[in-house]
Amino acid sequence: MMLKTHQCGKLTKADVGTTVTLNGWVQRRRDLGGVLFIDLRDRTGIVQTVFNPDFSGEALQVADRARSEYVLAVKGEVVLRDAETVNQNLDTGEIEVRVKEIEIMNAAKTPPFPIEDGVDVDESLRLKYRYLDLRRPEMQRTLLLRSKAAKVFRDFLDGEGFIDVETPILTKSTPEGARDYLVPSRVHPEEFFALPQSPQIFKQLLMVGGLERYYQIARCFRDEDLRADRQPEFTQVDIETSFLSQDQLLELMESLVKRLFSETVGADIPTPFQRITYADAMNKYGSDKPDLRFGLEMEDITDIVATSDVKVFATVAGSGGVVKALNAKGCASWSRKELDDLQPFASRYGGKGLAWVTVKEGEWRGPIVKFFKPEEIAALTERLAAEEGDLLLFSADKKKVVADVLGNLRLKVGRELGLIDESAFKFAWVVDFPLLGWDEEAKRYVAEHHPFTRPNEADVALFDTDPGAIRAQAYDLVLNGYEVGGGSMRIYQREVQEKMFQALGFSPEEAREKFGFLLDAFEFGTPPHGGIAFGFDRLVMLLTGRTNLRETIAFPKTANATDLLTDAPSPVEPSQLEQLHIRTVPKPASKPAAPSGAQA
Amino acid sequence: MMLKTHQCGKLTKADVGTTVTLNGWVQRRRDLGGVLFIDLRDRTGIVQTVFNPDFSGEALQVADRARSEYVLAVKGEVVLRDAETVNQNLDTGEIEVRVKEIEIMNAAKTPPFPIEDGVDVDESLRLKYRYLDLRRPEMQRTLLLRSKAAKVFRDFLDGEGFIDVETPILTKSTPEGARDYLVPSRVHPEEFFALPQSPQIFKQLLMVGGLERYYQIARCFRDEDLRADRQPEFTQVDIETSFLSQDQLLELMESLVKRLFSETVGADIPTPFQRITYADAMNKYGSDKPDLRFGLEMEDITDIVATSDVKVFATVAGSGGVVKALNAKGCASWSRKELDDLQPFASRYGGKGLAWVTVKEGEWRGPIVKFFKPEEIAALTERLAAEEGDLLLFSADKKKVVADVLGNLRLKVGRELGLIDESAFKFAWVVDFPLLGWDEEAKRYVAEHHPFTRPNEADVALFDTDPGAIRAQAYDLVLNGYEVGGGSMRIYQREVQEKMFQALGFSPEEAREKFGFLLDAFEFGTPPHGGIAFGFDRLVMLLTGRTNLRETIAFPKTANATDLLTDAPSPVEPSQLEQLHIRTVPKPASKPAAPSGAQA
Repeated sequence: MMLKTHQCGKLTKADVGTTVTLNGWVQRRRDLGGVLFIDLRDRTGIVQTVFNPDFSGEALQVADRARSEYVLAVKGEVVLRDAETVNQNLDTGEIEVRVKEIEIMNAAKTPPFPIEDGVDVDESLRLKYRYLDLRRPEMQRTLLLRSKAAKVFRDFLDGEGFIDVETPILTKSTPEGARDYLVPSRVHPEEFFALPQSPQIFKQLLMVGGLERYYQIARCFRDEDLRADRQPEFTQVDIETSFLSQDQLLELMESLVKRLFSETVGADIPTPFQRITYADAMNKYGSDKPDLRFGLEMEDITDIVATSDVKVFATVAGSGGVVKALNAKGCASWSRKELDDLQPFASRYGGKGLAWVTVKEGEWRGPIVKFFKPEEIAALTERLAAEEGDLLLFSADKKKVVADVLGNLRLKVGRELGLIDESAFKFAWVVDFPLLGWDEEAKRYVAEHHPFTRPNEADVALFDTDPGAIRAQAYDLVLNGYEVGGGSMRIYQREVQEKMFQALGFSPEEAREKFGFLLDAFEFGTPPHGGIAFGFDRLVMLLTGRTNLRETIAFPKTANATDLLTDAPSPVEPSQLEQLHIRTVPKPASKPAAPSGAQA
Repeated sequence: MMLKTHQCGKLTKADVGTTVTLNGWVQRRRDLGGVLFIDLRDRTGIVQTVFNPDFSGEALQVADRARSEYVLAVKGEVVLRDAETVNQNLDTGEIEVRVKEIEIMNAAKTPPFPIEDGVDVDESLRLKYRYLDLRRPEMQRTLLLRSKAAKVFRDFLDGEGFIDVETPILTKSTPEGARDYLVPSRVHPEEFFALPQSPQIFKQLLMVGGLERYYQIARCFRDEDLRADRQPEFTQVDIETSFLSQDQLLELMESLVKRLFSETVGADIPTPFQRITYADAMNKYGSDKPDLRFGLEMEDITDIVATSDVKVFATVAGSGGVVKALNAKGCASWSRKELDDLQPFASRYGGKGLAWVTVKEGEWRGPIVKFFKPEEIAALTERLAAEEGDLLLFSADKKKVVADVLGNLRLKVGRELGLIDESAFKFAWVVDFPLLGWDEEAKRYVAEHHPFTRPNEADVALFDTDPGAIRAQAYDLVLNGYEVGGGSMRIYQREVQEKMFQALGFSPEEAREKFGFLLDAFEFGTPPHGGIAFGFDRLVMLLTGRTNLRETIAFPKTANATDLLTDAPSPVEPSQLEQLHIRTVPKPASKPAAPSGAQA
C-alpha cells in the first residue's frame, strides 16, 4: 500500500523537486488530449495531479479508470505549473504533481450529490448520506473549528485550575423531569435511569466535595418538542466554582470567551462585556437576549398617553398595561402594504394590533393622529426623537405582550434597515433576573432558574413581603441576540434555602422528597458556589456563521428526533424488552408525520 | 463575604508578612490553654491557623463555634512558626496564619467518617456520601490526575492533527447487542434508541467522511453483569485514522502513551514497546494479556512426555492436548499444604489436576517421579533449566485449559516469589490475534474482534482453506497484565468484506440486514483505515496505583449497577411511562439481593 508522505492541500512552491506520495479522493478528472488531470482531495485541500504518457507510463491507464470519489494513492514529483495555468483560486495552484505511480485504493459509486460547498441539496438527503456530506470542505472546516473551540475552552480552564470531571449519564429522574429520557434497568425491574438534562446536581455535589473548580464538556439530553435550534442531545460547557463572587466569575468567563473568539476566528472581543439588567433589557429591547449590534430602543410612553383620546392607549394605561413606541428611523416611506403587514406580525406575538404614525413634510400622518392632543404630539416627538421621514410604531397591551411585539418588530426593522453589522460579535451579560415567577395555573411561585439559585443579598427580606420582586444572582451571556450561556450563584445557606422552599410552596417534607440527597449533602459544610453553562453547539454555530445547529454536529438528529443515517430510533427484538421488564404500548392514533425524506 | 486571596496548601515562608484571606474546611481544631489552632483545608492542602486573644479579638469567640468540616473564611498574617513547632509532615509546616478576622461561611453536621486518607470505611458508606469521600486528599489527587491524563491525551492528539468529534449517545441498537441499554422514544412509539457500546460505527463513518484523524474521549455503555473492574458506563479514548499502516499507528500510540506516563506520573517508558504475537503470548504466558514484569515462562513438553509412563501425560499428548510445565524457581521448600492447595487452584481454572516435582538434594521428588524414564528427566531438566531447590509444575489438558491453569499459576508464583516490580510499567503490544473463532454452539465462525477487522494480507487465501488460521490486523496494548487498549485495521475492500461475511456464514441479505447503512457507506470510496480505543478508567487506575475502577470515577455505580448516592435507578411516575408508550412488567421472582447498604 502506498501511504501518504505529504498532504494534498499543503504542497507549495517550496516542495518543487520533491517526490511525494499522496492519498485522497478524486474531486474532478479532465482528459485533455490524452493527458489526464485529476484533482486529488484530502482533509487539507486539493492538488492537481497530472498523468502524461511522457512520464506516467502505465499509471495513465490505471488513472483512466478512476471516477469521482475514488480513493487513490499517487506518487510523483512536485513541479511548477506554467505561468498561464496557475490557478489563483487554489492554495496549491502554483504547482502540480507529475504522477509516476498510482494505486486505486478503492472505487466509489457515483455520490448522490456533488462533494463541494454551496450545493443546493435537500437536507434530509445530506443527513442520510452524512458520511458524504462530511467530505464537503465547509463541513470539515466546521468540525475542525468545533474541535479547536473545545480545545480552547479546555486549555483556558485547565490553566485556571479547573478539573475536568465526568458525571454520570445514567442517573436519576429529576423531580419535575416529565421530559427526561428514561433507560429501563435489566437488574432492577420497574426502575429506570434517566439521562441528565444537565449535570447540575452533580456539579453542585462536586463543590460540596471540595473540588472548588470543575468543568466538563458534557452531553445533555432533553426529550422536548424540537425546534430548528434544539437537538435531543446537545453539548454544554459546564462550569462550577467555589469561593468566587458573581463579579469574579463573570470576569473570568469574559477572559475565557475573549480567548475563545481570538483563537478560533481571530476576533478581538473587548472586555468587560456590557452588563444590562433583566429589567432594562426587557424595557429597552423587549427581550432577555437583546441583539445589541444596533440601537433602536423602545420607549415607554404610558405616562404621556395615559389620558389620551386614543382610547386603546388610555384604556391599557388605566388597567395596568403599558404603551410603548419604537422609532423606525427613515421608514416613513414604507408602503401601505408594509404598514398593513404589521398587524399580522403583531398578532403572531400575541398583540392585538399595532398603531403607526409617519412623519412626512413636517407633520404627523396616519389613522390615529387625529386623536392625539398637540401636547401629546410634542411630548412624543421629544421622547422618541421623531424627525422628518421617521415611522413611529406603537404597541399597547400587557407588559409581556408589548415586549414581545415591539422586541420582534425591533429585530425586523433592524434587519430591514441594514442596522446589523453581520461581522460583529456583540456580547452582554443580562443580570438581575427575577428569582421567582408567578405560575397562574398552579397559583404559586416557581423558580425562574432553579430552586437553588441564590437571591441578591439586598432582596432576601422581600421573601416575606414581595417574593416576585426578588432579583436572583443569575446571569445569561447574550451574543447577537442569542443566549449562549447562563448560570447562577447557588444558595448555600440553610436559612435561605428554607425561605426559598417556602416561597415555592414546598413543605419541608416535600422539599426532602424532591431533593433529598442534595439537601443531605448541603448539611455537611457547603461552600459558597456558583457556575455557568455555555451552549457549545450554539457557540460553534455563531462562530462559523451558520444558522442551523445541525450544521455544527457531526451526526445530528432531525426536528423529528430521528437519525436519518442509522434510522434510529428503531424497533428492537422482543427478547431485549423482556430482559428489561418492559412491554410497548401501541399508540392508538397514527404515528406523527415524519418530515420529508425521513422515511425514505 | 470574605473571599480567598490565597490557597491554604500553597503558603510558604515566602508569604511571611503577607495578609491573606483563606477559605476552606476545618480539618482539626485544638484548644491549647485558650489559644485555638484550626487546621484549614482546601483543594491544595492544609494550613494551620491560630486564634489567640492577643491578636484575634472577637474572632476567637467565633472560631470557638467551628467544628469539623465547617466552612470558614479567615483573614490574617502569615508568620513563621517557632522552630520547635515546625511540622515537617505538612507542606505548609514552617508557617502559620495569625487570624484577625473570621467568618463562618457554613456549618456542618459531623461527617459519617473522617475526611482523611487511609481510613477503613465500608465502601457503600463512602459511595452514599460520595461528596464527603471526594474531600479526601487521595480522591482529589485521583480526580486531578484523571483530568490531567485526559488533557495529555488531548494535547498529544491535537498536536498530531486529530479532530475531536462527538458521536451520538442516542443511537441505534446494534445487531448482536442483546445487552444494549435501550431508550424508549416519546415521538416514535414502539421504537428505541440504544446507548452506544462504543462509537465504532461512527468512527468508521468519519473515516468514510474524509476526517482522516478522529478522536473522542467517549462515554460507552454495557448492560453486562458487572465485575469489580466493569462499570455500566465507562470512558474510552477512541481513535481512528486513515492512510496509516498498523506499524505507523502503533508507533504513534507508543509516543502518546510515553507522553501520558511522563506527564502524569513522571515515568519514563522506553519505546518501542515489545511486540508479542497472540500465539507466543498464549504459549509462554497462558494469557493474551501477559504480565511481563517478570519471566517465569511456561514450556511445552508434549514432545518429551508423549510416550511417558505418566499415563495422563501420554493420554493427553495422544489426543491432541498439550502438556506444559512451569519452573517455580526455588520453591521446592513449599509445604505439603501449599502443594495440596494447587489442586483446587487448578480446578478453579478448569484443570483436572496439577502434577508437581521438587528438586531436592540433587534428585527429583514427588508422587509422579517414579513414572518418569531417566531420559525424560534428563530432557525435562534441560528444557526447564531445573536446578536444586526448584519446583516443577505440570498441567496436561486441552490447550486452552493448560493456558488458563499455568497462566494463573504463573501469576500466583510470580507474586509469591516477589518477582513483580510493583513500581514498573511494562507495556507490550499483543499482535496477530486470530481473525475468527469457532463457535461450538452455533457451529460457525464468529469474529474475534468484529466483522470489519482486516485479515493479515498474507492470510487472505486461507479464507478458502482454513479460516480459523487467519491472523487479524488486530492488536491489544497490555500493561502489567491488564488490557489497556485494543483495536484493529479495518476491512475497506469489498471483496475482502464479502469473504469475511461468507466465513461468518452471513448471506449477502443477512449482511445487509445487519449492517445495512455501513455497507452502503463503504461503497462510496472508503479509505484504508484503522484505530484503537484505550480504556481510560483502567489506565487511570494503573496510573494511580489503585486496584478498583470505582476509585477512579467521581460518581461510580456499584457492582449491582446502582448509584448509592442518588439511589438510581428508581421508580418513575406512571405518566412518564405513558408518554413513552411503555409499561413495566413486574418480575415474577424476587429482586436480586442488593449489596450491603444499597437499600439503606
